[in-house]
Amino acid sequence: MKFSQFYAPSTKETPKDASLPSHIFLVRAGFIEQIGSGLYNFLPLGKRVLDKIRAIVKEEMDKAGAQEVNLSFVTPASLWQESGRYNVFGKELLRFKDRKENDFVLGPTHEEAMVSLVKNKITSYKQLPLHLYQITWKFRDEARPRFGLLRCREFLMKDGYSFHKNEEDLTREFDLMYETYSRILQRLGLNFRAVEADSGAIGGSGSKEFMVLAKNGEDDILLCENCDYAANIEAAKRAKKTCNKERPEANFASKFHTPNIKSIKELADFFRIDEFYTIKAVVKKAIYENESKLVVFFIRGCDDLQEVKAQNACKALELMDADESELLNAGLVPGFIGFVGLKNIDFYLDKELENEKQMIIGANEKDYHLVGIDVVNLNQDRFKDLVEVKENDCCLKCGGKLRKSKGIEVGHIFKLGQKYSKAMNAHFLDENGKTQAFYMGCYGIGVSRLVAVAIEASHDEKGCIWNQTLAPFTIDIIISNIKDEEAFKFANQIYQQLQDLGIEVLLDDRNERFGVKMNDFELMGFPYALVIGKGLQNNEVELIQRENLSKEIIKTDHVIENLKKKIL
Amino acid sequence: MKFSQFYAPSTKETPKDASLPSHIFLVRAGFIEQIGSGLYNFLPLGKRVLDKIRAIVKEEMDKAGAQEVNLSFVTPASLWQESGRYNVFGKELLRFKDRKENDFVLGPTHEEAMVSLVKNKITSYKQLPLHLYQITWKFRDEARPRFGLLRCREFLMKDGYSFHKNEEDLTREFDLMYETYSRILQRLGLNFRAVEADSGAIGGSGSKEFMVLAKNGEDDILLCENCDYAANIEAAKRAKKTCNKERPEANFASKFHTPNIKSIKELADFFRIDEFYTIKAVVKKAIYENESKLVVFFIRGCDDLQEVKAQNACKALELMDADESELLNAGLVPGFIGFVGLKNIDFYLDKELENEKQMIIGANEKDYHLVGIDVVNLNQDRFKDLVEVKENDCCLKCGGKLRKSKGIEVGHIFKLGQKYSKAMNAHFLDENGKTQAFYMGCYGIGVSRLVAVAIEASHDEKGCIWNQTLAPFTIDIIISNIKDEEAFKFANQIYQQLQDLGIEVLLDDRNERFGVKMNDFELMGFPYALVIGKGLQNNEVELIQRENLSKEIIKTDHVIENLKKKIL
Repeated sequence: MKFSQFYAPSTKETPKDASLPSHIFLVRAGFIEQIGSGLYNFLPLGKRVLDKIRAIVKEEMDKAGAQEVNLSFVTPASLWQESGRYNVFGKELLRFKDRKENDFVLGPTHEEAMVSLVKNKITSYKQLPLHLYQITWKFRDEARPRFGLLRCREFLMKDGYSFHKNEEDLTREFDLMYETYSRILQRLGLNFRAVEADSGAIGGSGSKEFMVLAKNGEDDILLCENCDYAANIEAAKRAKKTCNKERPEANFASKFHTPNIKSIKELADFFRIDEFYTIKAVVKKAIYENESKLVVFFIRGCDDLQEVKAQNACKALELMDADESELLNAGLVPGFIGFVGLKNIDFYLDKELENEKQMIIGANEKDYHLVGIDVVNLNQDRFKDLVEVKENDCCLKCGGKLRKSKGIEVGHIFKLGQKYSKAMNAHFLDENGKTQAFYMGCYGIGVSRLVAVAIEASHDEKGCIWNQTLAPFTIDIIISNIKDEEAFKFANQIYQQLQDLGIEVLLDDRNERFGVKMNDFELMGFPYALVIGKGLQNNEVELIQRENLSKEIIKTDHVIENLKKKIL
Repeated sequence: MKFSQFYAPSTKETPKDASLPSHIFLVRAGFIEQIGSGLYNFLPLGKRVLDKIRAIVKEEMDKAGAQEVNLSFVTPASLWQESGRYNVFGKELLRFKDRKENDFVLGPTHEEAMVSLVKNKITSYKQLPLHLYQITWKFRDEARPRFGLLRCREFLMKDGYSFHKNEEDLTREFDLMYETYSRILQRLGLNFRAVEADSGAIGGSGSKEFMVLAKNGEDDILLCENCDYAANIEAAKRAKKTCNKERPEANFASKFHTPNIKSIKELADFFRIDEFYTIKAVVKKAIYENESKLVVFFIRGCDDLQEVKAQNACKALELMDADESELLNAGLVPGFIGFVGLKNIDFYLDKELENEKQMIIGANEKDYHLVGIDVVNLNQDRFKDLVEVKENDCCLKCGGKLRKSKGIEVGHIFKLGQKYSKAMNAHFLDENGKTQAFYMGCYGIGVSRLVAVAIEASHDEKGCIWNQTLAPFTIDIIISNIKDEEAFKFANQIYQQLQDLGIEVLLDDRNERFGVKMNDFELMGFPYALVIGKGLQNNEVELIQRENLSKEIIKTDHVIENLKKKIL
């Protein structure tokens, strides 16, 4: 491709509201362009990268035996009503009416559509397993679209759905997808970890997220220093926390006057004990489909509430902060809430508190705490995993130290089990002639998101640094001065030769200053630039490697041979 | 691909409301499935065909120097307001609000988005020409979706937009696209004609439609028997019609009492002249953005009004029938409307009537006609091309006879000129440093529609007949009885060998009766079936060609060699 005819409008202007390198560089280099909040056009450079990712995803999915389909983007709302998600999914689900006032949604994911597709067509266990996938544009009406392609509203996703006759076969496919996703990300040249994850609105019995490690990642993940345990902070587990400080003395319950105690720290200081032995209450307003109510979460004074865990514990659609007046209306005493004698309100305790002895808790009375409280005689269902795992907590698997890192989610695989098939009455006959609901898995990978992730993971202060697999062009031949006829001729010759070798090459034949061309090379981030300039008089050209901007002088006779070695 | 693992759920049930072979067979054979009115899922078979068409379109577009992009499907309404089409486009434009109550549309076409993309980035004639295209899903909220993929709401289209410094360069690109589209359709193996077309809602100064000839085509086209003239009936022109019958005698205007004359035929009989010498009035209600009004179209008694031409003549958004009460309210005298003395109403005359002499027209008075009327002294703007060209009319280019045929539109190329660039202030500096609006072309080809068109053009009573270019698989190896171990083994061997040769092969290894497998082969329409059955005892297999269902016995030793000759 000749640059003089190629549409790659680069700019020096940083898009407003852009803070992440991938957002800034992809827009500045003319890979993508914003057309509305969370809506992007892919220009030729961006489209080329997108196609490369798409091709690798397709190749690996096909190799794994999955079959590609294409489901309608516009989806009848009735399917979502059938599964029960129409009301549950929230405002991210874009709903609209057509000219005949029928209800539709723009598909953000396609569990329902896929179940509907195979329902009544796959009727026997003999037709299973089956794995169908698509690589299509999706829409989620994000509350706050930001970070360019990382949190946009219209995005390209590969979503696959598998159907099985039993849990074991689902597990086999889940493991196969684990390998497939790992291979895809390896081929894309990304540094990733598969982590334990929360299943969120998709639901199901287990899931793994694929995280690319990157400084600007939105997600916190915990990695064990010692073993292969890795988890999203929303789902991370730890070995039960212990404390080597002394336990409070009181071994029977008694009420203490604790005036002006406003924080856990003050409380611990007051009793001269470690915060570990106190229990704090965090009150949230839980939103359900048809109601909202206050819920109290009790955790150790030294821990923090993990909101996703808390939300899962009380099965709410969403958790919101509660203000003091709401607490008072509910009969709670802010600052002095404890589970003893607490009535008419839902509450949960962190599971590490079960059977703990001699704890200090609020007395549900202003300026009073209870001391010497044992966490016993409570309903088992109240104990849930509620706390945020932190750096230096211990690994549940091996006891090793956990470290915190930042990651960007690029894939998520789920064991859905029978959630959707049961809700939508999608059945088959098993070996014994019995009717069963399908066991399902679903597997998503963010194709357009990966364009940005690749740059988050690989850039410098000048711009993008693409690896050879993803680069829109492998090499950029820069003619320093197009009025130099010799250089122009030689460059065109090399251009032709490289093209004949099947190498993707851009020939910068624009009537621009050398500096402009170099800046574009660095900003757009092609792996190599071959500069054809004055050195040609001595039969020399310069090869620049984008990654480290290292330079190498090559004799004109050896150019093709040298590049073949590096690139092919 | 092994059929036992492949998802191609065929059925004997004809989808309700389906009348066209492509609709019936593509659904029955499991290529597509309807999920809502005008909404289709593509199953693996359909997706494979779609990908083949897409790949050929992309290859030819790239070869012609166009560059692929991907514009956001969800488009801000503001772009459509800027061009003025937001109100004009009608209900086919699906409008909706996002969670923040901002207005959006689902892109049915992307002139606006594409102009916005290059605006302020292409600023000089030196950056021109530029041709950007995309192959993406579009949505049109059709009033009456029908005919399967032929008139659906969500569809895959290749839409390209070119930008030029002047009309000449636009014409060069238009001609290049003419050739490109012709080559695409040739490669797809379709019998097509490029015809003169109406530009419709897209607008512009000229356009050509690509029509695949097919019995069930929605469009009427007129083809010259003698030269290459071809046109959609909406745009067809003819040599001025003549009549060798005698002209009415009266050579001065006079009023005749014509009671009980209710039709043109009665009128002609009454005066004993040919209908050619009468002028009839057709009254329509023309709908505009902010008003609607009656418009009268005068044409020869022997002609019919062509509605699209009439609509273009009065520049209405839509034409509707007017009822008698509306005519009376407007002061018209139904059955006796003539242009002489007609006041306070818009009217147009067919251009062939200009300067006609001694005509008979309505007198605008009940039971009276005027005779001996010359069509003179009328404003030039009132004369428009209004009549429907018919079979046996004469070709405007060569005078040959025109023949009528049925076609299905698969592509449409437009010279848009400066319509959109002017409306959206998209300018560049020309060679003289003057600001000019871009000259634009746009070029669409219906990718998902072509899947159906291929079957409309090629099927029999048993099902689809795919050519080798489009077939989802080239050959279907049918094992008559999978319990026959020898046959099973040999079939798998041939399957492997053909795959190694890069031939797309389906191995029907299902535990089904032979009849079921043959029916599926005929319904799905792969070019070849290789039946491996009892003949294997004599080292013989049977090759069936789908097109004519001809059979050929082949010795097992020669199978690969024979197939290589036929397929590669």
